Amino acid sequence: MNFLAASGVTVEILQLLEENLRQSVTEDEFIKKSCTPLIQGGKRLRPMLFLLCANSREKILPEKILPLAVALELIHTASLVHDDILDGSKKRRGVETTNSKYGAQIAVLIGDYLFAKAFQLVAEGNYGDEVALILSKLVKNLCRGEIMQDLSLFEIPTLEEYYSRINFKTAIFLSACCRLGGIIGGLNRDEVDGLTVYGNSLGLAFQIVDDVLDFFGDEQLTGKSLGSDLKSGVITLPVIRALKVSDEAENLRGIVTNKNISREDISAAVKIVHGTDAFDYCKFRALAHIDVARISLPQIKNSVKLALEQVADFVVMRNA
Amino acid sequence: MNFLAASGVTVEILQLLEENLRQSVTEDEFIKKSCTPLIQGGKRLRPMLFLLCANSREKILPEKILPLAVALELIHTASLVHDDILDGSKKRRGVETTNSKYGAQIAVLIGDYLFAKAFQLVAEGNYGDEVALILSKLVKNLCRGEIMQDLSLFEIPTLEEYYSRINFKTAIFLSACCRLGGIIGGLNRDEVDGLTVYGNSLGLAFQIVDDVLDFFGDEQLTGKSLGSDLKSGVITLPVIRALKVSDEAENLRGIVTNKNISREDISAAVKIVHGTDAFDYCKFRALAHIDVARISLPQIKNSVKLALEQVADFVVMRNA
Repeated sequence: MNFLAASGVTVEILQLLEENLRQSVTEDEFIKKSCTPLIQGGKRLRPMLFLLCANSREKILPEKILPLAVALELIHTASLVHDDILDGSKKRRGVETTNSKYGAQIAVLIGDYLFAKAFQLVAEGNYGDEVALILSKLVKNLCRGEIMQDLSLFEIPTLEEYYSRINFKTAIFLSACCRLGGIIGGLNRDEVDGLTVYGNSLGLAFQIVDDVLDFFGDEQLTGKSLGSDLKSGVITLPVIRALKVSDEAENLRGIVTNKNISREDISAAVKIVHGTDAFDYCKFRALAHIDVARISLPQIKNSVKLALEQVADFVVMRNA
Repeated sequence: MNFLAASGVTVEILQLLEENLRQSVTEDEFIKKSCTPLIQGGKRLRPMLFLLCANSREKILPEKILPLAVALELIHTASLVHDDILDGSKKRRGVETTNSKYGAQIAVLIGDYLFAKAFQLVAEGNYGDEVALILSKLVKNLCRGEIMQDLSLFEIPTLEEYYSRINFKTAIFLSACCRLGGIIGGLNRDEVDGLTVYGNSLGLAFQIVDDVLDFFGDEQLTGKSLGSDLKSGVITLPVIRALKVSDEAENLRGIVTNKNISREDISAAVKIVHGTDAFDYCKFRALAHIDVARISLPQIKNSVKLALEQVADFVVMRNA
């Protein structure tokens, strides 16, 4: 991501982020062995958004921002470790999941450990109660989003329910990263609010694109087979759209609400979705959120604004 | 616990604690429904220790101490919810476990939610980074203790390994409650350190007594069948002692390290342990820690000191 170069988020800072992430999970032999693979790979979208927003006005000293950047990635990692426990995935970011390797109980504890470590870094970084409050609410909302999802598996959500879920699951997280950056970067309340809306809209678009890739992505690039959300009973925007416009809506409804959905069922469902305008519909919705993200950006350093706009483009253009 | 009356921890404060606990899990319908039963019952040992220590010098306003007291009980509850996921217990505190009622994935998320809610209360209470640091380390250490235990199931620990595990699992938690109380109560560093040692020693005694009750308790009172730790592969002090002094040590060793331990095996193991001095040995060790706890108490308000001494007596005298 060379658009970062001018923004103050230098290659050196990104290297320090990786180094500090690695260092954050070395407390004992087992923690190191089990957690080091978990923090490798990943887009680093959350710490990146935070680091960019923190540099919105002037360059901030690395030691002032890195602990919180690491904490955000640890919280994300912890939530993935817990997500993987029962969704059956054997691999994540190309490595075996903690659940698959050590069993559910250790996976629960490793996730808890990573959450706690994140809060430790924030307390040690002396960021104060406002920052800790944003982080704790963020974790709480992640849980609420996942609970929402788990309680309505194999049920067709309304558009409102879909948006509420992706807001809790993804958008609130990205929004918190930007908000925290703005606060640490010393922006005023209006500017911080602008970055918050940017992050929230970006998050909605990000999750919609994720959901689109599950139906229209290149399996080689995403590393997941098409329609994998359906297998776990998660019904997303492409299906909601197809159910509204497809001639085969009733057939699709029967397939996606069946808890014993087979591989063939999934292929059939993917085919029905492909036969509609779901791709364009979702892409246009995602683009609308990206537009909101862009126009919400406050007056900040030009290089950071440019970088955040490019992150927004990346979110909708990505194919994995 | 009428010994509390004079200490400043009044009936009104304890009622407020219950009320605030209930209020802490009302964010949405499902959280309320699933969490309310979890916070009912329980000895409230952790918030009680905190409240007593916070009142060591003068009476502290309820609004200054209740959020943290609630947070400590929520962290304890969260760790129980996560513990119950794979240890197979169907009931806890007399109610069905979250795992048994809603499945593992929801139990993971509810535990995460309760942890996050605890950190939210602390951030909202403006306790500052030092308090948040103690809490985050405490959660981290709880995880490390449980991981230690999980990685060595059906293995016979050395005395050092046993102490290290119960220190992480229990003693560090009680010690943190007392330390936090001392800090909020405005004690000086030496006094806070004294309360910390008190809590730590109390915690070691508490866990030893727990482990003794698993072999020598009254099943009607504890609500658990004798030797239940053996079933899950957790080998504790009574067994460590019996393995050292019993004529049937080799037999016992074979039983407790067998992952397919049967109900009959457990009865046989309990009988072997009963045939040794394990009860007295463990009780004397617990009493030694209680002595350390007592003599570590700093010069504080007499009524609080008396109450903390009585908590110490309760810990070794309890039969459930």
